[in-house]
Amino acid sequence: MDLAQIGATPKGGVCRIALTELDRQGRDLVVGWCRAAGLDVRTDEVGNVFARRAGSDPHAAAVATGSHIDTQPSGGKFDGNFGVLAGLEVMRTLNDLGIVTRAPLELAFWTNEEGTRFTPVMMGSGAFAGVFEAEFIRAQRDLDGISVGEALEQIGYRGEQPVGEVPGGMFAAYFEAHIEQGPVLEAAGLPIGVVSGALGQQWYDVTVTGMDAHAGPTPLALRHDAMLAAARMIDEVNRIAVEEAPHGRGTVGYVQVTPNSRNVIPGRVDFSVDLRNLSQAGLDRMDAAMRASFAQIAQRGAVQVSIIQVVKFEPCVFAPACVDSVRRAAAALGLPHMDVVSGAGHDAVYVAQRAPTGMIFVPCKDGISHNELEDALPEHIEAGANVLLQAMLEHAR
Amino acid sequence: MDLAQIGATPKGGVCRIALTELDRQGRDLVVGWCRAAGLDVRTDEVGNVFARRAGSDPHAAAVATGSHIDTQPSGGKFDGNFGVLAGLEVMRTLNDLGIVTRAPLELAFWTNEEGTRFTPVMMGSGAFAGVFEAEFIRAQRDLDGISVGEALEQIGYRGEQPVGEVPGGMFAAYFEAHIEQGPVLEAAGLPIGVVSGALGQQWYDVTVTGMDAHAGPTPLALRHDAMLAAARMIDEVNRIAVEEAPHGRGTVGYVQVTPNSRNVIPGRVDFSVDLRNLSQAGLDRMDAAMRASFAQIAQRGAVQVSIIQVVKFEPCVFAPACVDSVRRAAAALGLPHMDVVSGAGHDAVYVAQRAPTGMIFVPCKDGISHNELEDALPEHIEAGANVLLQAMLEHAR
Repeated sequence: MDLAQIGATPKGGVCRIALTELDRQGRDLVVGWCRAAGLDVRTDEVGNVFARRAGSDPHAAAVATGSHIDTQPSGGKFDGNFGVLAGLEVMRTLNDLGIVTRAPLELAFWTNEEGTRFTPVMMGSGAFAGVFEAEFIRAQRDLDGISVGEALEQIGYRGEQPVGEVPGGMFAAYFEAHIEQGPVLEAAGLPIGVVSGALGQQWYDVTVTGMDAHAGPTPLALRHDAMLAAARMIDEVNRIAVEEAPHGRGTVGYVQVTPNSRNVIPGRVDFSVDLRNLSQAGLDRMDAAMRASFAQIAQRGAVQVSIIQVVKFEPCVFAPACVDSVRRAAAALGLPHMDVVSGAGHDAVYVAQRAPTGMIFVPCKDGISHNELEDALPEHIEAGANVLLQAMLEHAR
Repeated sequence: MDLAQIGATPKGGVCRIALTELDRQGRDLVVGWCRAAGLDVRTDEVGNVFARRAGSDPHAAAVATGSHIDTQPSGGKFDGNFGVLAGLEVMRTLNDLGIVTRAPLELAFWTNEEGTRFTPVMMGSGAFAGVFEAEFIRAQRDLDGISVGEALEQIGYRGEQPVGEVPGGMFAAYFEAHIEQGPVLEAAGLPIGVVSGALGQQWYDVTVTGMDAHAGPTPLALRHDAMLAAARMIDEVNRIAVEEAPHGRGTVGYVQVTPNSRNVIPGRVDFSVDLRNLSQAGLDRMDAAMRASFAQIAQRGAVQVSIIQVVKFEPCVFAPACVDSVRRAAAALGLPHMDVVSGAGHDAVYVAQRAPTGMIFVPCKDGISHNELEDALPEHIEAGANVLLQAMLEHAR
């Protein structure tokens, strides 16, 4: 709640966009808390921050946690921020109890997870994973022409540590606690989701081209109605996802109609398709089914269709050793839980390319996120932090 | 082609919007041609212009023809203009042949058929029919705040004749020649369409309300996807129209998605529905089927739907005596023809409320209208004018 004061919005949310002056204030506050907890703080060349609690074995690789503290423009208090502060609470709790772990513990917060001001999203963890070069990231510019490198200098978070390097070697394990950002746990009435992986994503730009014509004088049989064909395709996107239950997702979120006049048969419709599934084989099935179905609809409707894939995230299966630790921790604490998958991307999905990784979800109110109404119950927040503590200890002891 | 020079566009079309300086130039040119043909020209208080060729019987009601010379912003040479100039050619032909008819003949061009600058559309003929009061029409304002009354003064076409009054009594018959503005005659390979009536129209604003949610974390079963429901409704609009073959039309030309972001399940979709049919009973069936279907789709998709009717034009059946005259004229001239209905509104549909009315359609290239590409073949134009001549003579002799 203290961190949420920085960039607080009138409706109870937070606007603290990556690499702004408010982000600097938020980073300074969290870094101050880390130092007060006796942690050793480092920053890498893309602004990722790492705070380490020493272990007893000088040769052991760190057991890490983290998330992000940047927000959407009309974001909430919990997205990302919960994971970072849960990690800090783990450190403080161990301090309070005088426990020294064998392996060092490390808390990270990653630069620009949200991708609001600078693209790509999940920039810091992506660079850490080696998906993006540091120089590529530092050269990205916002709408005012300011680069990530310049913004890092301005807020004092251009670090010296080469991105991807970890003192003592790559993390032995990485755990990220996060609000679910969806309705599954709340609907099930459970405080803990054991995240087994993250859905792969394939996004497409689809264009249906027919011919503009007057709605009145043009009989149905002589039409080339791009909207009618697009409507049938949108229904098919849903059907294709339903056939891939329970992990298939198919969404059309963007539709643009041309000329978009009430008495003109649309000559062109552009729309997006977002397909998700837990396996690449599943995504491949959905892709093939979509292409076949769209071609058939286009032929029936006497229109043309083009399909261009524009975004691709591979499906991610988290390390069984880490997923099992989360499940055991919840069980040991007597917390009701279920296995879930993440439908969205998270920093953990990139970190999983470098280190064994697991995630812990807690419910959020009405499944709402990326919204000032985002909220979570204190008992769920506490439960998630306790599971994080136990899972990290299992690997660090 | 001379008239089309006034407001000619680089792509071969015409932009001559009602009550502008260009409209004045077009009106002046046509009025000049009428006077040169010996016609007596009058203007009414909403700017409708009437040009009369005297008959031999001073007590006979006039047999009239007409259309409009205003255009869409990116309009063509033929829409409306063909009907006015075909009427002028009828007068000139009778002059050339020295024929004096029993009844007077009258050529009208109606103010602001297109409704581009001022609403409502078909303003002049609507006022003539008594659907709109003259003072209501004269008070309508464009986006710059200029009223129809002021614009009429500016271009010198505020006449003295009370709207709806006709010297010698209401027209004995009214015929309007027009390009089809659709693809039916071209597809059938016929030069003449005998127009039996015009489809009634009912337009609706539909709003589907669901709930915005992340496309990734929200399983299909927990969604309130306004776009998916809207897509199914759009498909139903088509199905409902197909069931009313051959005269049913159903079109969704306008769709607005909110928030319209590719990875957000749409929480709201607004769209238009345009239903047309030749009978009110048919329109009533379509309305009922649409409401039942939309309610079912909304329930299945866990969304709300609201349907508001915003526009209504009654179906119009033209006078059998006039329709038969057009059919006989085409047959007598050896011109292949078919009965058609008008899917769109025309000045003739309003005039039909006051006088027995018929229409003659000729094909236009690719069915295209309201477009600079609008075109028609000289032999079809000639055929249409000849049918108009014969149909008028049958009533005026």
